Amino acid sequence: MNFKAIILAAGKGTRMKSKYPKVIHKVCGKEMVNHIIDVSKKSGVNDTVVILGHESDVVKERLPKNSMIAMQTEQLGTGHAVMMAKEYIKDEDTIVVLCGDTPLIKEETLKKLFNYHIENNYHATVLTTKVENPTGYGRIIRDENQDLLKIVEQKDAKEDEKLVNEINSGIYCFNGKSLRESLDLIDNNNAQGEYYLTDTIKIMREKGHKVGAYAGSTIEELMGVNSRVELSRAEDIMRRRINESHMVNGVTIIDTNSTYIESDVKIGNDTIIYPGVMLSGNTKIGSGCIIGMNSSITNSEIGNDTEVKNSTIIDSVVGDNTTVGPYAYLRPKSNIGNNVKIGDFVEVKNAIIGDNSKASHLSYIGDASVGKNVNIGCGVVFVNYDGKKKFRSEVKDGAFIGSNSNLVAPVTIEEKGYIATGSTITNDVPEGALAIARQRQVVKEGWVEKKNNKDNK
Amino acid sequence: MNFKAIILAAGKGTRMKSKYPKVIHKVCGKEMVNHIIDVSKKSGVNDTVVILGHESDVVKERLPKNSMIAMQTEQLGTGHAVMMAKEYIKDEDTIVVLCGDTPLIKEETLKKLFNYHIENNYHATVLTTKVENPTGYGRIIRDENQDLLKIVEQKDAKEDEKLVNEINSGIYCFNGKSLRESLDLIDNNNAQGEYYLTDTIKIMREKGHKVGAYAGSTIEELMGVNSRVELSRAEDIMRRRINESHMVNGVTIIDTNSTYIESDVKIGNDTIIYPGVMLSGNTKIGSGCIIGMNSSITNSEIGNDTEVKNSTIIDSVVGDNTTVGPYAYLRPKSNIGNNVKIGDFVEVKNAIIGDNSKASHLSYIGDASVGKNVNIGCGVVFVNYDGKKKFRSEVKDGAFIGSNSNLVAPVTIEEKGYIATGSTITNDVPEGALAIARQRQVVKEGWVEKKNNKDNK
Amino acid sequence: MNFKAIILAAGKGTRMKSKYPKVIHKVCGKEMVNHIIDVSKKSGVNDTVVILGHESDVVKERLPKNSMIAMQTEQLGTGHAVMMAKEYIKDEDTIVVLCGDTPLIKEETLKKLFNYHIENNYHATVLTTKVENPTGYGRIIRDENQDLLKIVEQKDAKEDEKLVNEINSGIYCFNGKSLRESLDLIDNNNAQGEYYLTDTIKIMREKGHKVGAYAGSTIEELMGVNSRVELSRAEDIMRRRINESHMVNGVTIIDTNSTYIESDVKIGNDTIIYPGVMLSGNTKIGSGCIIGMNSSITNSEIGNDTEVKNSTIIDSVVGDNTTVGPYAYLRPKSNIGNNVKIGDFVEVKNAIIGDNSKASHLSYIGDASVGKNVNIGCGVVFVNYDGKKKFRSEVKDGAFIGSNSNLVAPVTIEEKGYIATGSTITNDVPEGALAIARQRQVVKEGWVEKKNNKDNK
Repeated sequence: MNFKAIILAAGKGTRMKSKYPKVIHKVCGKEMVNHIIDVSKKSGVNDTVVILGHESDVVKERLPKNSMIAMQTEQLGTGHAVMMAKEYIKDEDTIVVLCGDTPLIKEETLKKLFNYHIENNYHATVLTTKVENPTGYGRIIRDENQDLLKIVEQKDAKEDEKLVNEINSGIYCFNGKSLRESLDLIDNNNAQGEYYLTDTIKIMREKGHKVGAYAGSTIEELMGVNSRVELSRAEDIMRRRINESHMVNGVTIIDTNSTYIESDVKIGNDTIIYPGVMLSGNTKIGSGCIIGMNSSITNSEIGNDTEVKNSTIIDSVVGDNTTVGPYAYLRPKSNIGNNVKIGDFVEVKNAIIGDNSKASHLSYIGDASVGKNVNIGCGVVFVNYDGKKKFRSEVKDGAFIGSNSNLVAPVTIEEKGYIATGSTITNDVPEGALAIARQRQVVKEGWVEKKNNKDNK
Repeated sequence: MNFKAIILAAGKGTRMKSKYPKVIHKVCGKEMVNHIIDVSKKSGVNDTVVILGHESDVVKERLPKNSMIAMQTEQLGTGHAVMMAKEYIKDEDTIVVLCGDTPLIKEETLKKLFNYHIENNYHATVLTTKVENPTGYGRIIRDENQDLLKIVEQKDAKEDEKLVNEINSGIYCFNGKSLRESLDLIDNNNAQGEYYLTDTIKIMREKGHKVGAYAGSTIEELMGVNSRVELSRAEDIMRRRINESHMVNGVTIIDTNSTYIESDVKIGNDTIIYPGVMLSGNTKIGSGCIIGMNSSITNSEIGNDTEVKNSTIIDSVVGDNTTVGPYAYLRPKSNIGNNVKIGDFVEVKNAIIGDNSKASHLSYIGDASVGKNVNIGCGVVFVNYDGKKKFRSEVKDGAFIGSNSNLVAPVTIEEKGYIATGSTITNDVPEGALAIARQRQVVKEGWVEKKNNKDNK
Repeated sequence: MNFKAIILAAGKGTRMKSKYPKVIHKVCGKEMVNHIIDVSKKSGVNDTVVILGHESDVVKERLPKNSMIAMQTEQLGTGHAVMMAKEYIKDEDTIVVLCGDTPLIKEETLKKLFNYHIENNYHATVLTTKVENPTGYGRIIRDENQDLLKIVEQKDAKEDEKLVNEINSGIYCFNGKSLRESLDLIDNNNAQGEYYLTDTIKIMREKGHKVGAYAGSTIEELMGVNSRVELSRAEDIMRRRINESHMVNGVTIIDTNSTYIESDVKIGNDTIIYPGVMLSGNTKIGSGCIIGMNSSITNSEIGNDTEVKNSTIIDSVVGDNTTVGPYAYLRPKSNIGNNVKIGDFVEVKNAIIGDNSKASHLSYIGDASVGKNVNIGCGVVFVNYDGKKKFRSEVKDGAFIGSNSNLVAPVTIEEKGYIATGSTITNDVPEGALAIARQRQVVKEGWVEKKNNKDNK
């Protein structure tokens, strides 16, 4: 069987007050529509059709490469939206209809919905939930078999129907054939002039098809995001969910309110995450690490027992037993070894740093290969740019780069080469050699008093 | 009509445990008394009289320049406090009495109170609110016309009066003439020996004047701050209010619990504010910006589509499409153009940086004018101080300043001037010229081994 | 009388998913078991016996040096655990039994329990609390004198006993002699095959001894930590408690949700703590300070009226009226005087900085003594390491160290010595002398055009 998701993502979202369409606003670092796509895939969906409308190009470029698209140029209701995807609906498909603005729906809930739909051989199954106050929602009216009899909207509900507290989630499973057939029969003869997807349910029942209602969702999962206030609330809920899952796995999170971990991040046990940390993208942290306050790590891999303090790491790899920061900045393609120290006010970019090497303070290591057991003094600059082109340098094992010196690329410091403090190095340095490029010190006695006399004249 | 506010701000606030009087403690960056002054002005008040007592000088210097002051050297009750302002109360005035320690009162609420007072021709109107548990508060007893009959304090309330859950806010509107006349008649013949402002209400009723009660406040707005715990609670409420107003306007705030925006800050839509950000004073942020984690921006203006990452900006201007940080520090009078990059560990102070220029890392640009398309290398220092005086330098369009070089002010680098890495520049550099000031590199082969032998002896 | 605590700390804590035993996981910077030890000492306990089991060595090394230890190699119940400490229980002792995983128990509560136990001459006293829903807890059944009759576990409770909402905390006071005697009599004839400490209560009652129940705890204090989620909840509760106590003492905490203060930190009044601050270990902050956002201060002493902005301070001392940061890093043994400025991107380590001195930006001052009124320019490096050894330098009062210069240790700059910008100083500089070590500037006109022509060939 082929599981296919149709995701309604054509709306503008006026209350977002944005030039971007609603579904590409992000929750925990990922566009809402992509949350829906990811969760539907994880719950067993094979193919995804996204219904686009407002600013469709902007949405399209944020979708996974292989996404199928259907255009809904006018917004004429949920039924109309699904009709736009009709060419993708095959008789043998199981179709799940999802909303692009409900990012909190859970994988487990969808899986259970699918199972319930399949096991009971329903032609359609509505995901439902029970709420304290159902006012405003579509009520779920069940028949004597507990199958779904009908969905009644608030304005059409009779007194006894208004008391029903099981409500429609707006998420549905359909038999492909039944959906196609019933879509052909729905109309827009109503006050709003819209095509309602719920009318397909009515049509199936009229045909004598069995349709079901699965009360397996929480109301929290169904929260639709229509404003930035709701966006922030969804973010808050998802953040707590993600943080709790890491804590259950053995990660210590000092303050779950101020820890920001995106959904695809992996963390080993006995790692401690301090407040103000943001872990983004495809980041993987090992076991026994300390990720200190206010660190931001994006798309990077950190080994075991490594400590990152108040630093920013992007698109990089850091080994085991290494310390980074405070106030270090690893830019893309930094590859830091084991037992390394990258200290304060140090930037690394597109560089390899070998095991047991140190760059303790105030240095820039860009476009370079640094070997093992290298000591990079304070204030060292790997000068990689001449105003036109960038060049690469190499520092081999055991070299010592004196403070405030410049290595003007391309240049190679051979093993155990020693650069004197304050030297600008433009030529290669042989193994075990000292390179020095500075003027001798001259002292002018009494100079300060003379200067004072002059200044005061 | 002249609207005049009398703000009671004479109290010490013993429970604050502070050497400063209570009303100058800040909520969201502004002194409580100044919140009251600002909100009263916004709601239509023309003149403000602040009643001062404890440490009046300290309060006075924090008030707006044109504030009228009245001294209450002894604290003998709210009626006594208002008497101190008697010279400012004119017959034709409408007087609103406010407390200097209730910073959460809203502009809309005051406006509605004023309208209600005026439209009903009341001699006095009390702002009230309804609460679940009124114990301890003054109860609002209305007459058959729903006008105010009297205010009954807890200790004087009869059983049926105790059940009344509408309470006195301590905020009043008065007809100037009626207030003057009734202030002359109140006494301190009570257990506390105090003059109560509520006695003026009684006196007006006795004279047959109509007085009103306007139930238009929430209890939250009336929260008085008497301790640092309450100060922190008020800060929390105001912070959420401010953040929500920006979200409604189209600003994304990732975590409203950890975002600190002062009340006068302006932010364009589609700007995203990350957690741990503090925006203070008279700051204005454009549209489409990203203000990254832990950034602090004070009294500054940021253009559109600019990204500030983990940086500190004070009293500065930043253009469009520019990136700042992470870990940059813009000190006062930095004026950064469009498409500029101010990178990590860079300080700018009292300097202009032209469009498309870059200072990517570890540099200090102080007291300088830098043109367009300038590249400032890593570790560059604009040396602006000789121990006595500060001087200014100029770097013209298209210049290239090599890494770890010093520009000793005053010095001018003409267009496309090129400074070699590691040079200390003390004289002007002509257009298109190279300036170099460093020693040639000397290599001493075998030096490391000799040193090791020596060190080990 | 000798007050002795027996602390049950032998459990593994499987749900923590940790390689470390549960009781050494930290809450607000201190191991849970050490919180219990500290609070018991503060409430009057003289000696502590910690019952260890899982990974006892790892726990032992985190305990105070003088801790008495008893081993429980098998976990056979609370009674069994206390038996392991039997050699430490003297007839004349008062024994308090505590759990190593309930870090929130308060000093006041224990003190009151001890008083209640002593004043009433009880042989044993159970600490209890009242809860809304007692299901699952051991119920406290009192006799007609309000003494403790018995403790009934959930599974053994009759219907009327199930209604009792006073529950056993698991914290007890015992008369040493009675405890010894009754421990000899308890057995493990029960479904679990465990020795229950509560059986000692039954035995004492049977002997006719008076035993009591003191309802002086809150349920919050008794929260046991069995998972990282609970650990984070305990941290949250303790954090709020600590923050509130500082606010009551006159410290302004802008956002109590995002302020992290460990339990032994001391702060003077009128100090303002901004969000994202972490104050750890044995730190002491004076009065009137501003501790700006995201600062982290560990084991350090800060004077009065000092401002620390977005900086990291470890094992250091900072004087009065000094400013540190933003983005400064004081490493261990930094001793900063009064009226000093340590600016942005400055690291200090194992160094003394005298009053009125400045290191405003991008410098490293390591292993040095710096006098008063010294100006350290931008980009200055105290070069303290030659690849083998570290050396110390000295800069005396009134010296001026030009930007981007290096002081190669060991070197002494005498009073008012003046180092020219960009100099590498290897020899001592006499009083009032200028030292210069750089090449003169050479200008090559037309060089840029030539280079361009060459580059483009």
